[in-house]
Amino acid sequence: MRLFKELLSVDEAKKIFLSKIKSFGETDKDVEKIRISEALSRVAASDVASSVDIPHYDRAAMDGFAVVSEATKGASPSNPVLMKLGTHVDEETCVWVHTGDAMPEGGDAVVKAEDAEVVGEYVEVFRPVRKYENVGRRGEDVKRGDVLIRKGDIMKPAHVAILRSAGIEEVEVFRKPCIFVLPTGDELLPPGEELKPGKVYESNGIMVSSYVTQWGGIAELHPLVGDDADEIAEVIEEAGGDLIITTGGTSVGKRDYMLDVLSKHELLFRGIALRPGKPTLAGIVNEKPVLSLPGFPTACIAVMHILLKPAMEKMLSTKFGVSLKVRLLENVTSKIGFTSFVRVKIDFEAMTALPIATSGSGILSSVTAADGYILIPENVEGFERGERVTAYLF
Amino acid sequence: MRLFKELLSVDEAKKIFLSKIKSFGETDKDVEKIRISEALSRVAASDVASSVDIPHYDRAAMDGFAVVSEATKGASPSNPVLMKLGTHVDEETCVWVHTGDAMPEGGDAVVKAEDAEVVGEYVEVFRPVRKYENVGRRGEDVKRGDVLIRKGDIMKPAHVAILRSAGIEEVEVFRKPCIFVLPTGDELLPPGEELKPGKVYESNGIMVSSYVTQWGGIAELHPLVGDDADEIAEVIEEAGGDLIITTGGTSVGKRDYMLDVLSKHELLFRGIALRPGKPTLAGIVNEKPVLSLPGFPTACIAVMHILLKPAMEKMLSTKFGVSLKVRLLENVTSKIGFTSFVRVKIDFEAMTALPIATSGSGILSSVTAADGYILIPENVEGFERGERVTAYLF
Repeated sequence: MRLFKELLSVDEAKKIFLSKIKSFGETDKDVEKIRISEALSRVAASDVASSVDIPHYDRAAMDGFAVVSEATKGASPSNPVLMKLGTHVDEETCVWVHTGDAMPEGGDAVVKAEDAEVVGEYVEVFRPVRKYENVGRRGEDVKRGDVLIRKGDIMKPAHVAILRSAGIEEVEVFRKPCIFVLPTGDELLPPGEELKPGKVYESNGIMVSSYVTQWGGIAELHPLVGDDADEIAEVIEEAGGDLIITTGGTSVGKRDYMLDVLSKHELLFRGIALRPGKPTLAGIVNEKPVLSLPGFPTACIAVMHILLKPAMEKMLSTKFGVSLKVRLLENVTSKIGFTSFVRVKIDFEAMTALPIATSGSGILSSVTAADGYILIPENVEGFERGERVTAYLF
Repeated sequence: MRLFKELLSVDEAKKIFLSKIKSFGETDKDVEKIRISEALSRVAASDVASSVDIPHYDRAAMDGFAVVSEATKGASPSNPVLMKLGTHVDEETCVWVHTGDAMPEGGDAVVKAEDAEVVGEYVEVFRPVRKYENVGRRGEDVKRGDVLIRKGDIMKPAHVAILRSAGIEEVEVFRKPCIFVLPTGDELLPPGEELKPGKVYESNGIMVSSYVTQWGGIAELHPLVGDDADEIAEVIEEAGGDLIITTGGTSVGKRDYMLDVLSKHELLFRGIALRPGKPTLAGIVNEKPVLSLPGFPTACIAVMHILLKPAMEKMLSTKFGVSLKVRLLENVTSKIGFTSFVRVKIDFEAMTALPIATSGSGILSSVTAADGYILIPENVEGFERGERVTAYLF
């Protein structure tokens, strides 16, 4: 037996693992220049500043009459100010403008169409306007030199639109991190084979891959490998990608080969004080970080959120997902010395969280029912009903 | 002048517009059967129940020794229970099991490896186990007939994994709604052309398209069309897709042709009590719903969230995005009779929202800086600092 004698705290494990993860740099290797129409949800690789004012001229913000604002003083429906309708603006003359038109020289405000009436060659103005009223000023939205997007921004629709407004059609984004995923275990069946006692379908591979996709990466999913240390080692040694994830074979049983495999190279840690998720290993193989996740699905999910997600965030200099403060609807307990990963169902109207009680770490259905999770720190016995805690959304 | 004399309330506009939107049905036309490896983020078209128990047998939840639990009564390190290590389980005999192995007949609990020691052909058990301790029961995760995913579920990694666990490799999802997007306006420049006074780059087309993508749809973006009623009408009449979005030309100016275009077919409404977003029109052209958004970017965004998003949610029988309760850090005011769409920056630690003050509806930079928005209802003058309001995340 090779027991987990000393468990590393979650914080320590995170620190060690992340110290082996490189942030993507602004080099050709890590950056792709792509068209903005392809950029939605990608992560900006550098700050982008505007080379123009937006708008790049004073413009009418309404359909109406460009005027010298001073000249409309005292205008009212009963005592309208009369102006000539012309092609230039001065104290006595106004010009029709459409929304978005450049303001004619001399004009400093727009009288809204509904606040005036055309009478032959004249316009009756029924309401005074202040200087710049109904005028969009040059640079009102963005000034030349303003930063439009920042390194690490996940591109939202408004980011894409503001780049186009500034005449920027290409943007540098980080390439997607490539994560090699290797599921292992003799007790597992690949999809398509017939179910038999003692065997379950392998599902961690597709789950890890799906999370990798969700966190902006590309998953390279290797077919299932049995409990064969040599084969596992061979696959890992030849694997591509920025990071290798394995699932299964991390506990203390006779077929748990990940320790042997990683120990031949460089073992970073083995066993972390996380529940579920204790049997987690990390190492370095051919300069590549390897994270070996437990085979139980929810343990696997817990460690992915605790270690894989921050690793991908570090690569991309960004943050994925939302965390928020909620009140607990029930007590939750934890073992001192362990960080507990507790799935919760959130009521977004009441901002409360209901812990989803489960008896085992294999319970995938507790995750499909959950909106997110909370963490009970290792030095805390639990939280009481009504306590305000941070929930992380899936 | 064709003023907005009667503005429809936002609720009324939503009701009318959504009444013209069909929910996708469980027909071949609206459903695609796809492999689960392609299903992430797609929307389930029907409930899917499991045809198997997961696990489909009682299994060891730990590496250790399968035993009859009764036989371990009173075991302790100083007074271990001695058992034969065999190939079947009875009161005197235990069997080595790996995590995930089917429980041998007769065995009802597993003594963890670290709670026992092998001594020759015997095993010393140091700790008693309860019935089913360290055993994952048949159907513990999912019982045959349990619903794994529901119609309208947006497929998360755990959904994909649970389907694979149940041996389900294909899933029915709704096809992506196809949204035809037509930007209009003489004041606009297509990308690539040189900037000149009175002209700005058209950016609503790519923004609407990006939101459509984000809300699970496919955008068919038509090139920019100028203020030409005939050309606009022609494009709309020949447009494909489930829904048509136009931007620009919705106000009361001489070049605002959307009213003419829609009036020739069926106008649903014109002008809604939303700020920004008042100049919004909807109609039906060749049985297809048309939503005409104002050209100002943030007005366009407001109406997309108020009307387009719920329309796409109705098509797909789902909900996109997250809303949560936050405390306002500043007073916000609104004009009675209008629903106000206010961009906010959210502090997720404090759960507070800071309104982003802007002077115009053209201010895209206020949206890239915002995390979401709040709505001030039409019968409310505003909210006070400290009030708890619902924020919708972008």
